[in-house]
Amino acid sequence: MTAGKSRLHKAMPGFTWSEVEKESYKEGVGSWCGIDRNTLIGNRGESAKFHLRYFEIAPGGNSSLEKHVHEHVVICARGAGRAVVGDTVHEMAPMDVLYIAPDAPHQLINPGQEPFGFFCIVDSDRDRPRELDSEDMERLDASPKTKGVYRRG
Amino acid sequence: MTAGKSRLHKAMPGFTWSEVEKESYKEGVGSWCGIDRNTLIGNRGESAKFHLRYFEIAPGGNSSLEKHVHEHVVICARGAGRAVVGDTVHEMAPMDVLYIAPDAPHQLINPGQEPFGFFCIVDSDRDRPRELDSEDMERLDASPKTKGVYRRG
Repeated sequence: MTAGKSRLHKAMPGFTWSEVEKESYKEGVGSWCGIDRNTLIGNRGESAKFHLRYFEIAPGGNSSLEKHVHEHVVICARGAGRAVVGDTVHEMAPMDVLYIAPDAPHQLINPGQEPFGFFCIVDSDRDRPRELDSEDMERLDASPKTKGVYRRG
Repeated sequence: MTAGKSRLHKAMPGFTWSEVEKESYKEGVGSWCGIDRNTLIGNRGESAKFHLRYFEIAPGGNSSLEKHVHEHVVICARGAGRAVVGDTVHEMAPMDVLYIAPDAPHQLINPGQEPFGFFCIVDSDRDRPRELDSEDMERLDASPKTKGVYRRG
């Protein structure tokens, strides 16, 4: 039967999954702070054109301020998140779904007291994140919604 | 700014989302029973190579017994689900993640008393589901795990 590779990742306490290793993320790069990653779908020979990862940002932590052509789809799973996307900010709670369009500058922040956990779906074939340019930064500072909310480091 | 199409679908009571319409699913085909669908990502001009949908199977309902080359990734969001996949059966609870491999015969069933809700991620470019052939059916009946569990209609 061709179903040999089907599998269930059982949810375990603390938002971990059976047969999924926790990875340290972008270690040493410095612009991600307090983030753990689990690759649920995408590193076991799947042929799907997407990957599914689970990230968790510790209280006070944040992701890189970046942009890329590939899209992000984010499903909040636990805690509270603040998403800087383009010139606006979204507050996220569990089960909220965020679509980040191509080349939209973005950053995810944990403003709360508990972990902010979310699924993130991306194309399996995707471009590398890029730093924002001076024009992007000017727009972030020109918007009253994003000015003072995003983080540089 | 290129972020014009970014958007947040806020989770609303009853596992609905802002700016997402509930669709009737495979209406008239008859082999899906008691299912609602929401397309969260995939029908608004996105370029991502995947679609994200939310399905809900009413108590006692089930999806088609089918197979296809494209993979399914299922994230349980609410309730309890029973997944027939190949020659085995998985019981699903919220946050469990199921990977259904290419051409694995499968069916999702709601054995519980409350709605079984789940996200389902698929390639945007995908083949049509096919009915099982006699060999597939023989295997379902040959496995003590699946015999008597799957549903024909």
